[in-house]
Amino acid sequence: MLEGYKGKLASFLTSKGIEIGDKIRIKKENIEIEGILFPSFSRDEDIIVVKMDNGYNVGIKASGADLFLLSKRKSEEDRKHQSKDSKGEVKIISTGGTIVSKVEYETGAVRPALSTDEILEYLPQIKDVADIDAEILFTILSENMKPEYWTKISEKVKESLDKGARGVVIAHGTDTMSYTASAIAFSFTELTGPVVLVGSQRSSDRPSSDSSINLYSSVILAKESPFGEVAVLMHGESSDTYTIAHRGVKVRKMHTSRRDAFQSINDVPLAKVMWTENEVRMMRKDFIPRGKENKMDSKFDSRVFLLYYYPGMDPSLLELVKDRIRGVIVAGTGLGHTSDEFETVFKEFVKDGIFVGMTSQCLFGRVNMNVYTTGRKLLGSGVIPLGDMLPETALVKLMWSLAHAEDVEGVKKLMLTNMVGEFNDRHSEHLFPRWYHE
Amino acid sequence: MLEGYKGKLASFLTSKGIEIGDKIRIKKENIEIEGILFPSFSRDEDIIVVKMDNGYNVGIKASGADLFLLSKRKSEEDRKHQSKDSKGEVKIISTGGTIVSKVEYETGAVRPALSTDEILEYLPQIKDVADIDAEILFTILSENMKPEYWTKISEKVKESLDKGARGVVIAHGTDTMSYTASAIAFSFTELTGPVVLVGSQRSSDRPSSDSSINLYSSVILAKESPFGEVAVLMHGESSDTYTIAHRGVKVRKMHTSRRDAFQSINDVPLAKVMWTENEVRMMRKDFIPRGKENKMDSKFDSRVFLLYYYPGMDPSLLELVKDRIRGVIVAGTGLGHTSDEFETVFKEFVKDGIFVGMTSQCLFGRVNMNVYTTGRKLLGSGVIPLGDMLPETALVKLMWSLAHAEDVEGVKKLMLTNMVGEFNDRHSEHLFPRWYHE
Repeated sequence: MLEGYKGKLASFLTSKGIEIGDKIRIKKENIEIEGILFPSFSRDEDIIVVKMDNGYNVGIKASGADLFLLSKRKSEEDRKHQSKDSKGEVKIISTGGTIVSKVEYETGAVRPALSTDEILEYLPQIKDVADIDAEILFTILSENMKPEYWTKISEKVKESLDKGARGVVIAHGTDTMSYTASAIAFSFTELTGPVVLVGSQRSSDRPSSDSSINLYSSVILAKESPFGEVAVLMHGESSDTYTIAHRGVKVRKMHTSRRDAFQSINDVPLAKVMWTENEVRMMRKDFIPRGKENKMDSKFDSRVFLLYYYPGMDPSLLELVKDRIRGVIVAGTGLGHTSDEFETVFKEFVKDGIFVGMTSQCLFGRVNMNVYTTGRKLLGSGVIPLGDMLPETALVKLMWSLAHAEDVEGVKKLMLTNMVGEFNDRHSEHLFPRWYHE
Repeated sequence: MLEGYKGKLASFLTSKGIEIGDKIRIKKENIEIEGILFPSFSRDEDIIVVKMDNGYNVGIKASGADLFLLSKRKSEEDRKHQSKDSKGEVKIISTGGTIVSKVEYETGAVRPALSTDEILEYLPQIKDVADIDAEILFTILSENMKPEYWTKISEKVKESLDKGARGVVIAHGTDTMSYTASAIAFSFTELTGPVVLVGSQRSSDRPSSDSSINLYSSVILAKESPFGEVAVLMHGESSDTYTIAHRGVKVRKMHTSRRDAFQSINDVPLAKVMWTENEVRMMRKDFIPRGKENKMDSKFDSRVFLLYYYPGMDPSLLELVKDRIRGVIVAGTGLGHTSDEFETVFKEFVKDGIFVGMTSQCLFGRVNMNVYTTGRKLLGSGVIPLGDMLPETALVKLMWSLAHAEDVEGVKKLMLTNMVGEFNDRHSEHLFPRWYHE
């Protein structure tokens, strides 16, 4: 198999008996590189792509290079056998997304394709860190994720931890990864080990991919870390020096394409993973420790709406959806406002048993509806301020709360209980990032 | 007038003939401070509040202090007279908001109250920088701002610049200040001077207020800077060292309470104002220069909707609002996605002449709908990708475009034209802030 290689280079590789997945050595001028032969997607037919032991993908011009086959890839049979024997210290559940994707030749677009097993093949050093038990649960792009899948993932998490896994890694598309992280977090009141959602911003067949470092780090984290919480692990900065584990209910995708797109909002991350040293450095002491058992209750009621307020918004638009929903999360302006025209609509909603919760579209900071007249009027209408909770986290929590309370008072009580750290009462200066003004 | 002062301290001030707005000197132990006596809202009846020349408010225990009256505040008559004579180099238009607010004694809440004239009285050094002509246009909290007010503000801006003002300052509540900035920006194809929206996060009667430094900086900026653009000016960082002027269409309120809440997203700010040195430092060379005349066309059609996508969102919710709108801005996930269930709804909307534009809820980065299958499907439905435009900016631009195009093709053309820098094609590493991971 020589996926992506063409013409002269393909013939040359075949003549050496080299296939994708084989360990090879490349010598060119004074450079010598060892690594796994990777599929090539370069337009340049002379480029050979190798994944090195340190996790980097390197593309090298093959002209003038010497190639040596060091060892053949394991056959499908060998791998299946090994998989069966594994102690399963870390369970990897694949749901789809870029981290398990490759580029479609025909269109140039990316679609989910590589199995977790295939990734393990390209990243054999993961097996030195932990015994792996991998499973494909779904193959969907995360923008198509739904509450019913959150429940299925939670069930698989419980099953895996109950069977003795030290931790669970969930390979997930990045688009809605923080929503899923919140959903799983609210689904467990106790966890025997970490549940680590991991994704990548560039697919694993691209030289700049972050998938192998992220996956490698997530396995270290799942196995070694002392917490029983749901975390999102991605690059901490744009280079490859470390990865960061964020508390699942306090993280947000803040950039469309950067590898360090995921950042904690209004809270300190859980841990830093120095992946080159196989080391987990906890960044806070107040994490939720590993529990004795896995207590799960994963139900969601998606009859909710996220209202993003803007000037000129007609309150009657909200009335149109009234019959279809049991709760609204408002992403209001500033400290938690809408125009005062919404006062009457919210009052009517609350009277009819629809929960109305307030968050801020600023994202950073916390709502405080006592400062301005508008906020006080909205409070008077029965709108519930939701502190420093992110709008997205509040929405997922509302879906969960609606499925677990008898009435709107019950929903309110659940919404205001700090279940898994979704409220942070202690904000400090460093929770707002530094901006470049030079 | 001794607003806020009670008991012994009030009697003491009266005995010295000192009133709010008078210039006084306080001597206590080895400290000597000169400034304007400011209303006190401290619970401690012994605290005297003084605004110093450098813009800081200071609260000092009055016990044991010596007070000297240096000069009386100008009378109402004097000020009115002076106002009339002024050359009006900088026009200040007050619309309301915290920058012109004070605390309600009864409730502790903040309501708009101080006139711009009153602020000028507390900040007499503004008059050393420029001749001021101040006017109260509205007295509303910005969460109640509406498109019809955007037009009124634009008309007042045109009138002021046409009459010869070097620049215009608009005092505005911070909640929706960036929406208004975008609206004014799209309303002018040419401006003879800067239009500077300025707000404050803490009201002017609080010792920690940012209102005087911001207002002072905005006047320097309006008078001195070389651009004919709409800018938002606020603190650049949490201390008082400098203020930053952001391009109105590229700025967002990113924190509910910090004084440096406003930050440029996906672009470099326009200028830094070193207010202690009365100096404007341009941060970019590609600003739009002052024009020869003021070309205004300020109409908005608010039959729009901002759809914030989340997992589990039922596409039929969008159909409920269909009859009420002429355009939708989607804040999609990642590179510009929704679940693929929305494909059909969007197709139907576009077929019926409703514009559908895609932005990203990540805020940073740009949409790219060619990378994943989902994006390509949505493109096929007629959804228009809107680059790195912020969802809020795109929404305001859509309201403007709907009022200026004949049909959906015309709207599309306007939406994709880079009018005032709402698209930035050149992203660099430093457009993403630095996050604390220690």
